[in-house]
Amino acid sequence: MSQKNYAPIGVFDSGVGGLTVAREIMRNLPNEKIVYFGDTARVPYGNKSREAVLRYSRQIIRFLMTQDVKAIVVACNTASAMALETIREEINIPIIGVVKPGARVAAQVTRNHKIGVIGTRATINSCIYKEFIQRQNPEIEVIGKACPLLVPLVEEGWLKDAVTVEVARRYLEPLLRQDIDTLILGCTHYPLLRSVMRELVGEKVRLVNPAYETAKDLQRLLEERGLASPGKEEAEFPYRFYASDSVQQFKDFANSILPYDVGMTKQITIEEY
Amino acid sequence: MSQKNYAPIGVFDSGVGGLTVAREIMRNLPNEKIVYFGDTARVPYGNKSREAVLRYSRQIIRFLMTQDVKAIVVACNTASAMALETIREEINIPIIGVVKPGARVAAQVTRNHKIGVIGTRATINSCIYKEFIQRQNPEIEVIGKACPLLVPLVEEGWLKDAVTVEVARRYLEPLLRQDIDTLILGCTHYPLLRSVMRELVGEKVRLVNPAYETAKDLQRLLEERGLASPGKEEAEFPYRFYASDSVQQFKDFANSILPYDVGMTKQITIEEY
Repeated sequence: MSQKNYAPIGVFDSGVGGLTVAREIMRNLPNEKIVYFGDTARVPYGNKSREAVLRYSRQIIRFLMTQDVKAIVVACNTASAMALETIREEINIPIIGVVKPGARVAAQVTRNHKIGVIGTRATINSCIYKEFIQRQNPEIEVIGKACPLLVPLVEEGWLKDAVTVEVARRYLEPLLRQDIDTLILGCTHYPLLRSVMRELVGEKVRLVNPAYETAKDLQRLLEERGLASPGKEEAEFPYRFYASDSVQQFKDFANSILPYDVGMTKQITIEEY
Repeated sequence: MSQKNYAPIGVFDSGVGGLTVAREIMRNLPNEKIVYFGDTARVPYGNKSREAVLRYSRQIIRFLMTQDVKAIVVACNTASAMALETIREEINIPIIGVVKPGARVAAQVTRNHKIGVIGTRATINSCIYKEFIQRQNPEIEVIGKACPLLVPLVEEGWLKDAVTVEVARRYLEPLLRQDIDTLILGCTHYPLLRSVMRELVGEKVRLVNPAYETAKDLQRLLEERGLASPGKEEAEFPYRFYASDSVQQFKDFANSILPYDVGMTKQITIEEY
């Protein structure tokens, strides 16, 4: 057990969506400190080239390294798909993304081998969930559906609104018609719509929340590597939040979804890293 | 009358929204050729810094100059607000934006001096319409309302959908309660929701479409400077479209709103300009 065990976890996303992943880490690994970075000035990553996403991710990782993190969670579907494998070769601390944990669990729980995946247009077009699921079991049919209106609805705060229910109903209809028994919430914003989704798909469809599965994978990883924190250490700000654009909007959103008021938030110039 | 009169108009936007401005130019100035550039790889501009928007705009203008345009229309509210005045000093051809024409007409037509403006969060927070309107008449009250869900609804193609009507109704309600008699459609996507807006605001509220007013301003400008095209010149592609990301989605959207099928579309690397 060394000082390293008390070091924070670095978590990053293109914006605020990854806060749902941070939230699961807070809930499931309460002893761990977190440094979160949201690239709010360059959001969204979904329409950027692989080169751009890789360049941005490298800058963010250099910044997180200055915060002495002991492990990194890529809480962004696009960066997990486009940059994670390359970056893993370049750094000497553990790093995990959100796609593989969700895909693995979905492949394990499906009975009829029909899995639905909802996400942004970029995530669905990348077929990244399909690729990871079929690596587990090539027999599984994976049906993707892009839901471009759901992120703006969440960011507008209309979480349990009739409009949101109607929009989600239309997106899910073709998946349910194809008889899926498992649905991956393949965008970090979607866990905030979990109760809407549950109502629409009924009890028979298993909902897979990659944010939760990622926190569980992180827990296993820290234990295997002897990196888990043995207990809560006193710290003024166990959770620190950084963003590349003005923090006010970030703070409002974070306070609306996290179980406590966000203390330390700071804007940084990420291009300098 | 010189060869210059037959040169095309350069029109640019952060994405596809500026096509509504191109459409008004096609309708009102049918003799003019157009080169359109949509910065689809870097959309949206609304959350970017002034420096970034200025840098992007300069790159685009350098590209348009290689196409020998005779005048430039900044068909993007953010770039009109953040970059237009600076760029005007740097180039030797006429350039106009979308904000001033709409603001001028709204200030002229209001009777009760209460104007509503709807737009993206960035446009409304910039207060650019308010600034231009109150330069005309400081007595006018300008009430802004950010409508972040409307662009994704338009891009999803839900133009006359019940969901869109309900969302727009909620956004317009506080403006109507404040008794506006004029409403500026302060985002290039919104003219596509004109019939929805008309239904919601009734006949008493005057709708101002900056895309149309910009086309009329361009017409006056070309005539004043002796730059108007005297007639339709035979050209394989009188309207040419360029984008900084894959053109398929751009083409689909363009074909859905323009009065004919888009012929020439091409992806270019805008960072090289």
